Amino acid sequence: MTTTGKAVALISGGLDSATVLAIARADGFDVTALSFDYGQRHRFELEASQKVCEANQVSNHIVYRLDTAAFSGSALTDSIDVPKGRSDSEMEAGIPVTYVPARNTVFLSIALGLAESIDAYDIFIGVNAVDYSGYPDCRPEFIAAFEQMAKLATKAGVEQTGRFKVHTPLISLTKAEIIKQGLSLAVDYGLTHSCYDPAGDGISCGQCDSCQLRLRGFAEAGATDPITYASPQV
Amino acid sequence: MTTTGKAVALISGGLDSATVLAIARADGFDVTALSFDYGQRHRFELEASQKVCEANQVSNHIVYRLDTAAFSGSALTDSIDVPKGRSDSEMEAGIPVTYVPARNTVFLSIALGLAESIDAYDIFIGVNAVDYSGYPDCRPEFIAAFEQMAKLATKAGVEQTGRFKVHTPLISLTKAEIIKQGLSLAVDYGLTHSCYDPAGDGISCGQCDSCQLRLRGFAEAGATDPITYASPQV
Repeated sequence: MTTTGKAVALISGGLDSATVLAIARADGFDVTALSFDYGQRHRFELEASQKVCEANQVSNHIVYRLDTAAFSGSALTDSIDVPKGRSDSEMEAGIPVTYVPARNTVFLSIALGLAESIDAYDIFIGVNAVDYSGYPDCRPEFIAAFEQMAKLATKAGVEQTGRFKVHTPLISLTKAEIIKQGLSLAVDYGLTHSCYDPAGDGISCGQCDSCQLRLRGFAEAGATDPITYASPQV
Repeated sequence: MTTTGKAVALISGGLDSATVLAIARADGFDVTALSFDYGQRHRFELEASQKVCEANQVSNHIVYRLDTAAFSGSALTDSIDVPKGRSDSEMEAGIPVTYVPARNTVFLSIALGLAESIDAYDIFIGVNAVDYSGYPDCRPEFIAAFEQMAKLATKAGVEQTGRFKVHTPLISLTKAEIIKQGLSLAVDYGLTHSCYDPAGDGISCGQCDSCQLRLRGFAEAGATDPITYASPQV
Protein backbone atom coordinates (compact mmCIF):
# COMPACT_ATOMS: atom_id res chain seq x y z
CA MET A 1 0.00 0.00 0.00
CA THR A 2 1.42 3.44 -0.87
CA THR A 3 1.38 6.00 1.90
CA THR A 4 -0.19 9.39 1.13
CA GLY A 5 1.09 10.92 4.36
CA LYS A 6 0.54 10.99 8.06
CA ALA A 7 -2.89 11.46 9.57
CA VAL A 8 -4.41 11.63 13.03
CA ALA A 9 -7.68 9.71 13.47
CA LEU A 10 -9.99 10.08 16.45
CA ILE A 11 -10.93 6.59 17.59
CA SER A 12 -13.63 6.05 20.20
CA GLY A 13 -14.01 2.31 19.85
CA GLY A 14 -17.46 2.73 18.30
CA LEU A 15 -18.80 1.63 14.96
CA ASP A 16 -18.33 4.99 13.25
CA SER A 17 -14.70 5.59 14.16
CA ALA A 18 -13.77 2.00 13.30
CA THR A 19 -15.18 2.66 9.84
CA VAL A 20 -13.32 5.96 9.57
CA LEU A 21 -10.06 4.27 10.50
CA ALA A 22 -10.55 1.67 7.77
CA ILE A 23 -11.26 4.47 5.26
CA ALA A 24 -8.13 6.42 6.28
CA ARG A 25 -6.04 3.26 5.95
CA ALA A 26 -7.61 2.42 2.58
CA ASP A 27 -6.75 5.96 1.44
CA GLY A 28 -3.12 5.14 2.21
CA PHE A 29 -2.59 7.26 5.32
CA ASP A 30 -0.05 6.37 7.98
CA VAL A 31 -2.46 6.76 10.90
CA THR A 32 -1.73 7.85 14.45
CA ALA A 33 -4.85 7.03 16.46
CA LEU A 34 -6.03 9.31 19.24
CA SER A 35 -8.51 8.17 21.89
CA PHE A 36 -9.71 10.08 24.91
CA ASP A 37 -10.07 8.94 28.46
CA TYR A 38 -12.35 11.68 29.72
CA GLY A 39 -14.04 10.03 32.64
CA GLN A 40 -16.51 7.98 30.65
CA ARG A 41 -18.63 5.95 33.04
CA HIS A 42 -17.44 2.70 31.54
CA ARG A 43 -14.11 1.53 30.13
CA PHE A 44 -15.43 -0.71 27.35
CA GLU A 45 -15.06 2.09 24.79
CA LEU A 46 -11.32 2.39 25.44
CA GLU A 47 -10.84 -1.36 25.35
CA ALA A 48 -12.66 -1.47 22.02
CA SER A 49 -10.52 1.39 20.66
CA GLN A 50 -7.41 -0.62 21.45
CA LYS A 51 -8.74 -3.70 19.65
CA VAL A 52 -9.79 -1.64 16.63
CA CYS A 53 -6.33 -0.07 16.38
CA GLU A 54 -4.59 -3.42 16.67
CA ALA A 55 -6.72 -4.76 13.83
CA ASN A 56 -5.82 -1.80 11.58
CA GLN A 57 -2.03 -1.53 11.80
CA VAL A 58 -2.02 1.99 13.23
CA SER A 59 1.53 3.23 13.72
CA ASN A 60 0.81 4.72 17.13
CA HIS A 61 -2.21 4.80 19.45
CA ILE A 62 -2.34 7.59 22.00
CA VAL A 63 -4.90 7.46 24.81
CA TYR A 64 -5.13 11.01 25.97
CA ARG A 65 -6.34 11.54 29.51
CA LEU A 66 -8.58 14.56 29.81
CA ASP A 67 -9.45 15.98 33.20
CA THR A 68 -13.27 16.01 33.49
CA ALA A 69 -13.57 19.28 35.41
CA ALA A 70 -14.67 21.19 32.33
CA PHE A 71 -17.10 18.54 31.14
CA SER A 72 -19.77 18.35 33.79
CA GLY A 73 -23.45 18.25 33.09
CA SER A 74 -23.54 15.21 30.79
CA ALA A 75 -25.06 11.77 31.19
CA LEU A 76 -21.88 10.20 29.85
CA THR A 77 -19.71 11.55 32.63
CA ASP A 78 -22.11 12.27 35.49
CA SER A 79 -24.85 10.36 37.20
CA ILE A 80 -27.79 11.50 35.05
CA ASP A 81 -29.78 8.49 33.77
CA VAL A 82 -29.12 7.47 30.16
CA PRO A 83 -32.48 7.57 28.34
CA LYS A 84 -33.80 4.19 27.14
CA GLY A 85 -36.32 3.07 24.56
CA ARG A 86 -36.89 6.52 23.13
CA SER A 87 -38.99 6.99 20.02
CA ASP A 88 -37.64 8.63 16.86
CA SER A 89 -39.41 11.87 17.67
CA GLU A 90 -37.94 11.89 21.16
CA MET A 91 -34.46 11.28 19.78
CA GLU A 92 -34.86 14.07 17.27
CA ALA A 93 -36.17 16.63 19.76
CA GLY A 94 -33.22 18.90 20.48
CA ILE A 95 -29.83 18.30 21.98
CA PRO A 96 -29.71 15.09 24.04
CA VAL A 97 -28.59 14.86 27.69
CA THR A 98 -25.63 12.78 26.52
CA TYR A 99 -24.19 15.96 24.96
CA VAL A 100 -20.80 16.82 26.49
CA PRO A 101 -20.03 20.57 26.38
CA ALA A 102 -17.65 21.44 23.54
CA ARG A 103 -16.46 17.84 23.35
CA ASN A 104 -15.60 17.64 19.67
CA THR A 105 -14.00 21.08 19.84
CA VAL A 106 -11.67 19.89 22.57
CA PHE A 107 -11.02 16.55 20.87
CA LEU A 108 -10.23 18.17 17.53
CA SER A 109 -8.04 20.83 19.15
CA ILE A 110 -5.88 18.21 20.81
CA ALA A 111 -5.82 16.26 17.55
CA LEU A 112 -4.62 19.46 15.88
CA GLY A 113 -1.80 19.90 18.39
CA LEU A 114 -0.80 16.27 17.94
CA ALA A 115 -1.00 16.56 14.15
CA GLU A 116 1.20 19.63 14.11
CA SER A 117 3.75 18.01 16.40
CA ILE A 118 4.12 14.96 14.12
CA ASP A 119 3.93 16.91 10.83
CA ALA A 120 0.52 15.55 9.91
CA TYR A 121 -1.98 17.75 8.11
CA ASP A 122 -4.96 15.42 7.94
CA ILE A 123 -7.38 14.69 10.76
CA PHE A 124 -10.10 12.05 10.50
CA ILE A 125 -13.22 12.11 12.66
CA GLY A 126 -16.34 9.97 12.48
CA VAL A 127 -18.97 12.64 13.01
CA ASN A 128 -22.30 12.07 11.42
CA ALA A 129 -25.08 14.54 10.84
CA VAL A 130 -27.75 12.27 9.42
CA ASP A 131 -28.99 9.66 11.85
CA TYR A 132 -28.39 11.74 14.91
CA SER A 133 -28.31 15.44 14.37
CA GLY A 134 -28.82 16.53 17.98
CA TYR A 135 -25.16 17.32 18.61
CA PRO A 136 -24.19 20.79 17.36
CA ASP A 137 -20.55 19.75 16.99
CA CYS A 138 -21.39 16.99 14.48
CA ARG A 139 -22.66 19.37 11.81
CA PRO A 140 -20.81 20.20 8.59
CA GLU A 141 -20.85 23.91 9.41
CA PHE A 142 -19.04 23.24 12.67
CA ILE A 143 -16.39 21.13 10.93
CA ALA A 144 -15.88 23.82 8.28
CA ALA A 145 -15.50 26.48 10.96
CA PHE A 146 -13.03 24.33 12.88
CA GLU A 147 -10.96 23.73 9.77
CA GLN A 148 -10.90 27.44 9.00
CA MET A 149 -9.80 28.19 12.57
CA ALA A 150 -7.12 25.48 12.44
CA LYS A 151 -5.53 27.05 9.38
CA LEU A 152 -5.13 30.31 11.30
CA ALA A 153 -4.13 28.71 14.61
CA THR A 154 -1.01 26.83 13.71
CA LYS A 155 2.56 27.34 12.64
CA ALA A 156 2.02 24.75 9.93
CA GLY A 157 -1.15 26.48 8.75
CA VAL A 158 0.64 29.83 8.55
CA GLU A 159 3.90 28.66 7.04
CA GLN A 160 2.30 26.29 4.56
CA THR A 161 -0.59 28.58 3.66
CA GLY A 162 -3.60 26.92 5.08
CA ARG A 163 -2.92 23.24 5.16
CA PHE A 164 -5.00 21.09 7.56
CA LYS A 165 -7.96 19.15 6.46
CA VAL A 166 -10.58 17.64 8.73
CA HIS A 167 -11.87 14.54 6.96
CA THR A 168 -15.43 13.56 7.83
CA PRO A 169 -16.14 10.67 5.45
CA LEU A 170 -19.30 9.64 7.32
CA ILE A 171 -20.90 13.03 7.78
CA SER A 172 -23.62 12.61 5.18
CA LEU A 173 -24.11 8.83 5.38
CA THR A 174 -26.91 6.98 7.10
CA LYS A 175 -25.94 4.39 9.68
CA ALA A 176 -26.80 1.65 7.17
CA GLU A 177 -24.55 3.25 4.55
CA ILE A 178 -21.71 3.51 7.08
CA ILE A 179 -22.05 -0.17 7.93
CA LYS A 180 -22.15 -1.19 4.26
CA GLN A 181 -19.00 0.80 3.56
CA GLY A 182 -17.26 -0.67 6.60
CA LEU A 183 -18.17 -4.21 5.63
CA SER A 184 -16.81 -3.58 2.13
CA LEU A 185 -13.50 -2.64 3.84
CA ALA A 186 -13.64 -5.75 6.05
CA VAL A 187 -14.21 -3.84 9.30
CA ASP A 188 -14.73 -6.28 12.15
CA TYR A 189 -17.66 -4.67 13.96
CA GLY A 190 -17.41 -7.39 16.58
CA LEU A 191 -14.49 -5.42 18.04
CA THR A 192 -16.49 -2.22 18.43
CA HIS A 193 -18.61 -0.91 21.29
CA SER A 194 -21.48 1.55 20.95
CA CYS A 195 -23.72 1.19 24.03
CA TYR A 196 -24.08 4.19 26.37
CA ASP A 197 -25.05 1.97 29.31
CA PRO A 198 -23.54 -1.53 29.13
CA ALA A 199 -23.88 -4.17 31.83
CA GLY A 200 -20.93 -4.83 34.15
CA ASP A 201 -19.63 -7.51 31.81
CA GLY A 202 -19.71 -5.10 28.85
CA ILE A 203 -22.85 -6.51 27.21
CA SER A 204 -24.70 -3.76 25.33
CA CYS A 205 -28.16 -2.83 26.59
CA GLY A 206 -29.86 -2.73 23.19
CA GLN A 207 -32.19 0.08 24.26
CA CYS A 208 -30.24 3.33 24.58
CA ASP A 209 -30.22 5.71 21.61
CA SER A 210 -26.85 4.48 20.45
CA CYS A 211 -27.81 0.78 20.54
CA GLN A 212 -31.09 1.46 18.77
CA LEU A 213 -29.40 3.39 15.97
CA ARG A 214 -26.78 0.69 15.58
CA LEU A 215 -29.28 -2.17 15.50
CA ARG A 216 -31.47 -0.35 13.02
CA GLY A 217 -28.44 0.41 10.85
CA PHE A 218 -27.50 -3.24 10.63
CA ALA A 219 -31.10 -4.19 9.86
CA GLU A 220 -31.33 -1.60 7.08
CA ALA A 221 -27.96 -2.71 5.69
CA GLY A 222 -29.25 -6.27 5.53
CA ALA A 223 -26.42 -7.39 7.82
CA THR A 224 -26.13 -8.99 11.21
CA ASP A 225 -24.56 -7.13 14.11
CA PRO A 226 -21.89 -9.48 15.49
CA ILE A 227 -22.07 -8.15 19.06
CA THR A 228 -24.37 -9.46 21.80
CA TYR A 229 -27.20 -7.42 23.32
CA ALA A 230 -28.97 -7.90 26.63
CA SER A 231 -32.32 -6.83 25.28
CA PRO A 232 -32.26 -5.66 21.65
CA GLN A 233 -35.01 -3.23 20.66
CA VAL A 234 -35.19 -2.48 16.96
CA MET B 1 -19.96 46.28 42.08
CA THR B 2 -22.75 45.03 39.84
CA THR B 3 -22.22 41.71 38.13
CA THR B 4 -22.70 41.58 34.39
CA GLY B 5 -22.56 37.79 34.29
CA LYS B 6 -20.21 34.88 34.55
CA ALA B 7 -16.99 34.69 32.60
CA VAL B 8 -14.08 32.31 32.24
CA ALA B 9 -10.63 33.93 32.21
CA LEU B 10 -7.44 32.16 31.18
CA ILE B 11 -4.82 32.97 33.80
CA SER B 12 -1.18 32.01 33.26
CA GLY B 13 0.32 33.93 36.14
CA GLY B 14 1.97 36.36 33.73
CA LEU B 15 1.66 40.09 33.39
CA ASP B 16 -0.83 40.02 30.54
CA SER B 17 -3.36 37.64 32.07
CA ALA B 18 -3.18 39.45 35.44
CA THR B 19 -4.16 42.61 33.59
CA VAL B 20 -6.96 40.81 31.75
CA LEU B 21 -8.33 39.49 35.03
CA ALA B 22 -8.41 42.99 36.49
CA ILE B 23 -10.23 44.24 33.38
CA ALA B 24 -12.80 41.43 33.54
CA ARG B 25 -13.41 42.18 37.22
CA ALA B 26 -13.66 45.92 36.55
CA ASP B 27 -16.23 45.15 33.84
CA GLY B 28 -18.29 43.45 36.56
CA PHE B 29 -17.86 39.82 35.57
CA ASP B 30 -18.08 36.99 38.08
CA VAL B 31 -14.86 35.30 36.98
CA THR B 32 -13.96 31.62 37.03
CA ALA B 33 -10.22 31.43 36.41
CA LEU B 34 -8.72 28.64 34.34
CA SER B 35 -5.01 27.81 34.43
CA PHE B 36 -3.23 24.98 32.68
CA ASP B 37 -0.66 22.59 34.04
CA TYR B 38 0.72 21.31 30.74
CA GLY B 39 4.15 20.16 31.75
CA GLN B 40 5.77 23.58 31.85
CA ARG B 41 9.39 23.22 32.80
CA HIS B 42 8.91 25.32 35.91
CA ARG B 43 6.06 25.70 38.38
CA PHE B 44 6.44 29.41 39.14
CA GLU B 45 3.78 30.28 36.58
CA LEU B 46 1.17 28.21 38.38
CA GLU B 47 2.13 29.61 41.77
CA ALA B 48 1.82 33.11 40.35
CA SER B 49 -1.59 32.31 38.85
CA GLN B 50 -2.80 31.27 42.30
CA LYS B 51 -1.59 34.52 43.88
CA VAL B 52 -3.13 36.62 41.10
CA CYS B 53 -6.49 34.89 41.55
CA GLU B 54 -6.42 35.32 45.31
CA ALA B 55 -5.77 39.04 44.86
CA ASN B 56 -8.73 39.41 42.48
CA GLN B 57 -11.60 37.67 44.27
CA VAL B 58 -12.19 35.08 41.57
CA SER B 59 -15.11 32.83 42.48
CA ASN B 60 -13.33 29.66 41.41
CA HIS B 61 -9.85 28.84 40.14
CA ILE B 62 -9.46 25.64 38.16
CA VAL B 63 -5.98 24.31 37.41
CA TYR B 64 -6.53 21.99 34.49
CA ARG B 65 -3.95 19.28 34.01
CA LEU B 66 -3.20 18.66 30.34
CA ASP B 67 -1.31 15.58 29.25
CA THR B 68 1.73 16.74 27.29
CA ALA B 69 1.74 13.95 24.68
CA ALA B 70 0.31 16.22 22.02
CA PHE B 71 2.56 19.17 22.80
CA SER B 72 6.04 18.06 21.99
CA GLY B 73 8.55 20.10 20.02
CA SER B 74 8.49 23.25 22.15
CA ALA B 75 11.16 24.88 24.31
CA LEU B 76 8.59 25.43 27.06
CA THR B 77 7.90 21.73 27.51
CA ASP B 78 10.97 19.97 26.13
CA SER B 79 14.69 20.36 26.56
CA ILE B 80 15.39 22.81 23.72
CA ASP B 81 17.35 25.83 25.01
CA VAL B 82 15.33 28.98 25.61
CA PRO B 83 16.90 31.74 23.47
CA LYS B 84 18.55 34.56 25.43
CA GLY B 85 19.56 38.11 24.65
CA ARG B 86 17.95 38.16 21.22
CA SER B 87 17.76 41.37 19.23
CA ASP B 88 14.46 42.84 18.05
CA SER B 89 15.01 41.55 14.53
CA GLU B 90 15.69 38.06 15.84
CA MET B 91 12.55 38.14 17.96
CA GLU B 92 10.49 39.29 15.01
CA ALA B 93 11.82 36.67 12.58
CA GLY B 94 9.13 34.04 12.30
CA ILE B 95 7.52 31.75 14.83
CA PRO B 96 9.73 31.25 17.92
CA VAL B 97 10.86 27.88 19.29
CA THR B 98 8.76 28.60 22.39
CA TYR B 99 5.65 28.07 20.23
CA VAL B 100 3.55 25.16 21.52
CA PRO B 101 1.51 23.47 18.78
CA ALA B 102 -2.12 24.60 18.83
CA ARG B 103 -1.80 25.74 22.42
CA ASN B 104 -4.30 28.59 22.44
CA THR B 105 -6.73 26.47 20.43
CA VAL B 106 -6.64 23.76 23.09
CA PHE B 107 -6.77 26.27 25.95
CA LEU B 108 -9.73 28.13 24.45
CA SER B 109 -11.55 24.89 23.65
CA ILE B 110 -11.35 23.73 27.24
CA ALA B 111 -12.37 27.22 28.36
CA LEU B 112 -15.36 26.89 26.04
CA GLY B 113 -16.37 23.55 27.56
CA LEU B 114 -16.01 24.99 31.04
CA ALA B 115 -17.94 28.12 30.08
CA GLU B 116 -20.79 26.11 28.65
CA SER B 117 -20.95 23.87 31.72
CA ILE B 118 -21.29 26.85 34.10
CA ASP B 119 -23.59 28.92 31.85
CA ALA B 120 -20.95 31.51 31.03
CA TYR B 121 -20.79 33.08 27.59
CA ASP B 122 -17.76 35.27 27.96
CA ILE B 123 -14.15 34.11 27.77
CA PHE B 124 -11.21 36.41 28.50
CA ILE B 125 -7.72 35.74 27.17
CA GLY B 126 -4.63 37.94 27.28
CA VAL B 127 -3.34 37.42 23.77
CA ASN B 128 -1.40 40.25 22.23
CA ALA B 129 -0.51 40.78 18.61
CA VAL B 130 1.64 43.90 18.91
CA ASP B 131 4.84 43.38 20.84
CA TYR B 132 5.21 39.75 19.92
CA SER B 133 3.47 38.69 16.78
CA GLY B 134 5.34 35.43 16.16
CA TYR B 135 2.60 33.22 17.55
CA PRO B 136 -0.11 32.49 14.95
CA ASP B 137 -2.70 31.84 17.66
CA CYS B 138 -2.33 35.35 19.11
CA ARG B 139 -3.67 37.11 16.02
CA PRO B 140 -7.08 38.79 15.77
CA GLU B 141 -8.01 36.64 12.76
CA PHE B 142 -7.43 33.50 14.83
CA ILE B 143 -9.58 34.79 17.69
CA ALA B 144 -12.37 35.76 15.27
CA ALA B 145 -12.25 32.29 13.69
CA PHE B 146 -12.33 30.61 17.10
CA GLU B 147 -15.32 32.68 18.17
CA GLN B 148 -17.17 31.82 14.98
CA MET B 149 -16.42 28.13 15.50
CA ALA B 150 -17.51 28.32 19.16
CA LYS B 151 -20.91 29.65 18.17
CA LEU B 152 -21.45 26.60 15.98
CA ALA B 153 -19.88 24.09 18.37
CA THR B 154 -22.03 24.42 21.41
CA LYS B 155 -25.51 23.75 22.68
CA ALA B 156 -25.54 27.27 24.12
CA GLY B 157 -24.37 28.74 20.83
CA VAL B 158 -27.12 26.92 18.93
CA GLU B 159 -29.96 27.43 21.37
CA GLN B 160 -29.13 31.04 22.11
CA THR B 161 -28.25 31.96 18.53
CA GLY B 162 -24.58 32.57 18.57
CA ARG B 163 -23.69 33.73 22.03
CA PHE B 164 -20.04 33.35 23.14
CA LYS B 165 -17.63 36.15 23.03
CA VAL B 166 -13.87 35.85 23.27
CA HIS B 167 -12.64 39.04 24.91
CA THR B 168 -9.09 40.06 24.01
CA PRO B 169 -8.73 43.46 25.67
CA LEU B 170 -4.93 43.50 25.18
CA ILE B 171 -4.75 42.37 21.58
CA SER B 172 -3.88 45.75 20.09
CA LEU B 173 -1.99 47.26 23.04
CA THR B 174 1.77 47.62 23.41
CA LYS B 175 3.35 46.12 26.51
CA ALA B 176 3.71 49.62 27.95
CA GLU B 177 0.01 50.33 27.35
CA ILE B 178 -0.92 47.03 29.02
CA ILE B 179 1.16 47.94 32.07
CA LYS B 180 -0.30 51.43 32.27
CA GLN B 181 -3.83 50.04 32.11
CA GLY B 182 -3.02 47.43 34.75
CA LEU B 183 -1.50 49.98 37.09
CA SER B 184 -4.61 52.15 36.70
CA LEU B 185 -6.59 49.10 37.91
CA ALA B 186 -4.18 48.54 40.81
CA VAL B 187 -2.76 45.29 39.45
CA ASP B 188 0.05 44.06 41.70
CA TYR B 189 2.64 43.01 39.12
CA GLY B 190 4.85 41.82 41.96
CA LEU B 191 2.62 38.70 42.07
CA THR B 192 3.18 37.84 38.41
CA HIS B 193 5.80 35.74 36.68
CA SER B 194 6.91 36.12 33.05
CA CYS B 195 10.37 34.52 32.67
CA TYR B 196 10.73 31.53 30.36
CA ASP B 197 13.84 30.31 32.19
CA PRO B 198 13.89 31.27 35.88
CA ALA B 199 16.56 30.21 38.37
CA GLY B 200 15.78 27.43 40.86
CA ASP B 201 14.52 29.98 43.39
CA GLY B 202 12.16 31.51 40.84
CA ILE B 203 14.24 34.63 40.12
CA SER B 204 13.66 35.81 36.54
CA CYS B 205 16.61 35.69 34.16
CA GLY B 206 16.08 39.12 32.63
CA GLN B 207 17.36 37.99 29.23
CA CYS B 208 14.84 35.70 27.57
CA ASP B 209 12.38 37.24 25.10
CA SER B 210 9.64 37.41 27.73
CA CYS B 211 11.82 39.17 30.33
CA GLN B 212 13.15 41.62 27.76
CA LEU B 213 9.66 42.56 26.55
CA ARG B 214 8.47 42.98 30.13
CA LEU B 215 11.41 45.13 31.20
CA ARG B 216 11.11 47.31 28.13
CA GLY B 217 7.36 47.66 28.73
CA PHE B 218 7.88 48.95 32.25
CA ALA B 219 10.59 51.32 31.04
CA GLU B 220 8.34 52.70 28.29
CA ALA B 221 5.46 53.02 30.74
CA GLY B 222 7.71 55.05 33.03
CA ALA B 223 7.14 52.54 35.81
CA THR B 224 9.30 50.23 37.87
CA ASP B 225 8.91 46.47 37.60
CA PRO B 226 8.48 45.24 41.18
CA ILE B 227 9.99 41.80 40.56
CA THR B 228 13.66 40.89 40.92
CA TYR B 229 15.87 39.89 37.98
CA ALA B 230 19.13 37.97 38.00
CA SER B 231 20.59 39.94 35.12
CA PRO B 232 18.22 42.47 33.59
CA GLN B 233 18.89 43.39 29.97
CA VAL B 234 16.80 46.26 28.64
